[in-house]
Amino acid sequence: MTTIVSVDVTDVRFPTSATMDGSDAMNKDGDYSAAYVVIRTDDPELSGFGFTFTIGRGNDICVLAARLRGRPLVGRSVEEVVADLGGTYRELKSDSQLRWLGPDKGVEHLALAAVMNAVWDLAGRVAGKPLWRLLTDMTPAELVDVADLSYLSDVLTRDEAIGLLAELAPTRERRVAELSGTGYPCYTTSAGWLGYSDDKLRRLCQEAVDSGYRHIKLKVGGSLAEDVRRLRIAREVIGYEDAQLMIDANQVWDVPQAIEWVGALAEFKPLWIEEPTSPDDILGHAAIRRAVAPIGVATGEHGMNRVLFKQMFQAEAIDFCQLDAARLASVNEIIAVYLMAKKFGVPVCPHAGGVGLCELVQHLSVFDYVAVSGSLEGRVTEYVDHLHEHFTDPCVVREGAYVLPSAPGYSARMHEESVAAYTYPTGAYWAAATA
Amino acid sequence: MTTIVSVDVTDVRFPTSATMDGSDAMNKDGDYSAAYVVIRTDDPELSGFGFTFTIGRGNDICVLAARLRGRPLVGRSVEEVVADLGGTYRELKSDSQLRWLGPDKGVEHLALAAVMNAVWDLAGRVAGKPLWRLLTDMTPAELVDVADLSYLSDVLTRDEAIGLLAELAPTRERRVAELSGTGYPCYTTSAGWLGYSDDKLRRLCQEAVDSGYRHIKLKVGGSLAEDVRRLRIAREVIGYEDAQLMIDANQVWDVPQAIEWVGALAEFKPLWIEEPTSPDDILGHAAIRRAVAPIGVATGEHGMNRVLFKQMFQAEAIDFCQLDAARLASVNEIIAVYLMAKKFGVPVCPHAGGVGLCELVQHLSVFDYVAVSGSLEGRVTEYVDHLHEHFTDPCVVREGAYVLPSAPGYSARMHEESVAAYTYPTGAYWAAATA
Repeated sequence: MTTIVSVDVTDVRFPTSATMDGSDAMNKDGDYSAAYVVIRTDDPELSGFGFTFTIGRGNDICVLAARLRGRPLVGRSVEEVVADLGGTYRELKSDSQLRWLGPDKGVEHLALAAVMNAVWDLAGRVAGKPLWRLLTDMTPAELVDVADLSYLSDVLTRDEAIGLLAELAPTRERRVAELSGTGYPCYTTSAGWLGYSDDKLRRLCQEAVDSGYRHIKLKVGGSLAEDVRRLRIAREVIGYEDAQLMIDANQVWDVPQAIEWVGALAEFKPLWIEEPTSPDDILGHAAIRRAVAPIGVATGEHGMNRVLFKQMFQAEAIDFCQLDAARLASVNEIIAVYLMAKKFGVPVCPHAGGVGLCELVQHLSVFDYVAVSGSLEGRVTEYVDHLHEHFTDPCVVREGAYVLPSAPGYSARMHEESVAAYTYPTGAYWAAATA
Repeated sequence: MTTIVSVDVTDVRFPTSATMDGSDAMNKDGDYSAAYVVIRTDDPELSGFGFTFTIGRGNDICVLAARLRGRPLVGRSVEEVVADLGGTYRELKSDSQLRWLGPDKGVEHLALAAVMNAVWDLAGRVAGKPLWRLLTDMTPAELVDVADLSYLSDVLTRDEAIGLLAELAPTRERRVAELSGTGYPCYTTSAGWLGYSDDKLRRLCQEAVDSGYRHIKLKVGGSLAEDVRRLRIAREVIGYEDAQLMIDANQVWDVPQAIEWVGALAEFKPLWIEEPTSPDDILGHAAIRRAVAPIGVATGEHGMNRVLFKQMFQAEAIDFCQLDAARLASVNEIIAVYLMAKKFGVPVCPHAGGVGLCELVQHLSVFDYVAVSGSLEGRVTEYVDHLHEHFTDPCVVREGAYVLPSAPGYSARMHEESVAAYTYPTGAYWAAATA
């Protein structure tokens, strides 16, 4: 038996605000950060790694919350924890006093995501499988057992969920083989941050097309005149025929303003407008979607939980579901969202970027194609070329597609040197920066 | 000029789990707690007091978050802060890095509520007025300036909000005079906690009726057979003619289960079913409401922000809006919810109980009647007889009504001895309990 001896959580922050990487109309100065969890065991060769993602201040709050969330794991048998990933999740989630602070949202949910991401990483390492393979080796009933279907039975029962998964189970390996050759298609946001100059925008768009990308995303919502100029530059470079352009407002508009502003950008034929308004506004997204069609509506990186996504589907509010691997409470809740998306026919295009999100979502997208949706239509997963150097098993993108990860786990482990240098505020980088 | 010299936040916990006070189907063992904020100034006679309410574990997380939220106030002029309560709110809320942890929900929003509650308390003390009077002395335009109308313009514009308030402005003093005589009607939840025996339930129902209450609320959702037995006891005591019975499930059901369970309790003619399912499930509440009418649907104590309430109103999902004074980000956001409730014709019956919530909501209910709704129809504010002894200006209830508070501020100040004894884990009570 192997025993969990500690759940350590570290405040890791990268000084991305210095270069305006990641700048948009809402988040002007983020320092991409992680509340980084290490589940240590009495086997020095075996740990589980996970995190949630934040953009700087308040990362310490998530660290404290994750420590409290992870405490019940200490002293447990690793074998028992990974043999019942649904039970482990439900137990960590069941603390009724912590529930008051959400429920299922905000800091507490981010913290549960961080801890459960590390549990899933641990499970992959114990099995010697990358997370996508761990999931695609589970039967439909096993997958539904780990999924969090609570509050969802009005749209998805357990039997229905098993049925959805059973449809594709016999052909899973065919799709694994296919993706092993092609990878999973992705798009880049690296070109379009608001803080970049026009020349840099033009150059990055050209580089993206030259690298094989067929989807490029630009931030909008700062100034309409600038948005028009920047979208024109992007379309000049990528054209209208072979490449899709997406736009992302990061929640800066009220509903009427969103409808007006997106209308003014319609000539550039964006595939989707992302986060046009409050991420909580299901009915607002539905109203915007009706008004701006055929431009699609996308949201989800701030989608707080499965109950929000359920309603986004029920209200026909979105064309693209952009779930976030560090905001939903890990694979348990994410499976439930994928299942609902399948039922409602909405493609899932996970949010990524930040720090480590690309590492996580590549596993989820492969799982979706192999076991849930069986389709690549309308699906493309975000990719941002930041901060991968800090991970021991960084994602690999070739010709606009994620290469299937092969190392055991959830690709969530950071280099110890990176953690040490960027621990806030005591690591070498921050000690020097604040000196 | 008076200057803010510190924003101190203390982790105060009361051991309510020991007596099963506050027990319900979801929250079985709460220790009613407060992340308690004191805004200290260089005038030893002037401080502002506020808090958010939690039920135990994780209160330390709110404390940390409130410290971070309050930091920008230090060094500011008290006069400037209280002269621009809208600007102060927007500035504290505008931190884009902290926004990522919500936005506007969970721990971060509870923390903003705690700090802004203390700011409003401070404003009342500076003005020498109880909070309700501070508000009812503001013009319609001044009230709308402090309200947070962001993300709401699809249902309520600034001009419309001013218009709603202007209607009742000329007659405010008439309603102040009326409430000065009658108080504001309340109901009691003290009878109906799940953990109480049948004899205690019967006795407490009788005492409530004898004390002048015309509304009594029972917790349900643990076991249907027990619910039937307990509701029968309550109706035997209070009858069907002169008193209303409300039931509260504290979110334990999925939507179909809620419809079925409430149907099985319909013979007891509850006025409302409170929190039948996830507090995030707008469309679920709407479906339940359609199915269980004429029983009303109530929710709001976990209503995370104004965008959620906007949609509850748009979807015609609730008959009673139970906003929470420690979960919404203080008066700034609460005014917005009251204005929307007025527009949509939904009575607001604030959640109270916990620790200190009764002290806060009495001010809000008076403000609503005097300045916003001008109506008492369908309105009754929660009252629970716990923990008032820890406050320097405790609410007073007579004949089933809150007596208008008269002391300056938001009634949010605790006795220093209480704070000292129940500070967790170092105060005298906890040091002894854990020894």
